[in-house]
Order: sequence, then structure tokens, then C-alpha cells
Amino acid sequence: MRVLAVSGSLRPESHNSQLLRAARELAPEAIEWDTYDALITIPPFHGERDDPDAPEAVQHWRDRLAAADAVLFATPEYNGSVPGVLKNAVDWASTPFPDNVLRGKPVMVVGASTGAYGAMWAQADLRRILGITGARVLDGDLAVARAHEAFDEDGRLRSASQTERLSELLGALAAESLPAAA
Amino acid sequence: MRVLAVSGSLRPESHNSQLLRAARELAPEAIEWDTYDALITIPPFHGERDDPDAPEAVQHWRDRLAAADAVLFATPEYNGSVPGVLKNAVDWASTPFPDNVLRGKPVMVVGASTGAYGAMWAQADLRRILGITGARVLDGDLAVARAHEAFDEDGRLRSASQTERLSELLGALAAESLPAAA
Repeated sequence: MRVLAVSGSLRPESHNSQLLRAARELAPEAIEWDTYDALITIPPFHGERDDPDAPEAVQHWRDRLAAADAVLFATPEYNGSVPGVLKNAVDWASTPFPDNVLRGKPVMVVGASTGAYGAMWAQADLRRILGITGARVLDGDLAVARAHEAFDEDGRLRSASQTERLSELLGALAAESLPAAA
Repeated sequence: MRVLAVSGSLRPESHNSQLLRAARELAPEAIEWDTYDALITIPPFHGERDDPDAPEAVQHWRDRLAAADAVLFATPEYNGSVPGVLKNAVDWASTPFPDNVLRGKPVMVVGASTGAYGAMWAQADLRRILGITGARVLDGDLAVARAHEAFDEDGRLRSASQTERLSELLGALAAESLPAAA
């Protein structure tokens, strides 16, 4: 089964991209890991429900989502919500209506921030937004606070409880994506 | 005093841009009206709190906000929230931290959608987000539902109560922006 990992940050030193790399290390062997790191290429969404001539970068994004049995999002928090760049990508993925690539797709959301709350509100907003696109939003969250201190020099989470939690989430993700992969 | 009108939609036939044109017709004479329609030029926000070399389109956006005594946003709703494109622009406007151009700025949010709720949830999210940037979010909302039927051939709102409501909001906006203009 294939999991697509999507970081909502464009920063080269992104803590959320780091969180996804840590997740990859913890993922069950049955998971084939794919990392989407081309958010910056996705143009502004125009608001139309249909787009027979979607830009190439958008088609590529949709293809990667379609090829995945499940999607793991890691989101930073800007102004208490989802980065506009990530929301813009989700807006594109939510069309064409109603047969978009997220419909029925198992998705999970985690997040990291340098503040005290670990992108908790951005995660909550992203779960709600993904649910409205038709995605199947899985229970479970992980809020990595003080993210600049959360990883060791090998890129692993320092906290044993967060490591255990992330392992649990990945197990749940693998279990949920099995039916689609069968 | 100057009000900057910002539509969150890129669509040429945008109902939210139409709503702002209707607002302009109803605005008190004391208001100098400025329309920002270059959202599509704003690049993806990178998540840094400071950016001494912000792209030209971002500097232009910030300059227009800075020159306004108040800002009127009209937002569509995509997947139950603010369009990614508009959130991305607000993310840029929220930096550099802490002296961003939105801090203390009176802002008001209205919205239109072709559905039954008039972008109510996107408006609520945008008000919350703008509050977190430091903007002074004014009370008052206007949710124009079934927006494709809401305007007459002259671009005016068909509903007398919505027209009255919009006039009230503009009066409140003008009153709030007076201290800054004085």
C-alpha cells in the first residue's frame, strides 16, 4: 500500500517536513512511502468546479493523490489556520466536482510548530476542510510543540510518547488503507 | 478616508467582486474607494516571519493595505473555508512580525456564494484569522446566498434588506476608519 506524505510548509528547514521524515522511519514495512514536495508549483485555484484543462502541476498533484491509498498531511500553522499554499492545493484537489481524487480517501493530519500548541488549530481546520472535500478523515492527531527542540540530530522525535503516538497513527493509517489497496 | 476592497475570488464573473462593486455604489461620499484585484500575482508565502526582500507583488499588496484606513474583504467559500489564495495573501500581510500592515487596521468581512449559506463559514474563518494577524475586526456580516440570483442587471443587490444591511456596514466602516484618517 502507498502513503503520500504532504508537508504544508515550503521552508527548506521545515519542521513539518522533518516530522514526515521521522514518520517514514517509523512506518510499517508494508507501506510504500511517497513524498509530495511540489506545493510551490501549484498555481492559484480559480474557483471553478470543473477544469478540463487543469495546469500540469495540478494534474501531477491529483495523480499523486489518486495513486495513494492514504494521505498523511503535516501542517504548520499561520495565523491560527492552514497555510494558504496548502489550502490552495486542497482546493484544487477538491475539483472536479463531485468526482475528485480525495473523495473517500483515508487521510490523517499531524502538525508541528515552534509555539506551545503544535499547530493544533491548523490541524483542526485542515481536518474539517478535508472532510468537506469528501475525504475520509481518520481519528488521531499529533501536535509537536516547540518543534525547533523536538528532533534529535538524527531527525527522530526526542519524546518517547510522541514517537509511540506517531507509530500508532501510522499503524492505523496502514490498516485503513488496506481495503483500497486490496 | 480610504477603504481598500479585496475580493477573495479570481473568477472574472466573481459574485464577491460584484458584491464589492455594489458596496462601492452604496458607500458614503467621504470614502475614497480603492479596489485590489491582483491577488493572482502574489507568490506562495514561505512561512518566514521576516522577509527583507519580499517579492514586488507582495510589497505592492502591503503598500495598498498600509495606505488604506480600513479594508473590506468579500470572500467566497471553498471547502467550507477561506480560498487558499486569499489566505496566502493574508499570510504575507501578517509579516514581518510584529509590525505588519494589518496590525490595528479596521477590517470588515462580507461574502457571497451560490449556495444557501452565503460563505458564512469562510467569513467566520477569515474574521478569526484576521484577528490573529492583529487587525481590528469590526462587528457585522453579510452573507449573500444564491449569489447568481442576488444581483439585478445594474449590479445592485435585489434584496432591500441586504442593501440596507450593506449600507449600515459601510457606515460603520467609515466611522471606524475616521480616527486613522484624522
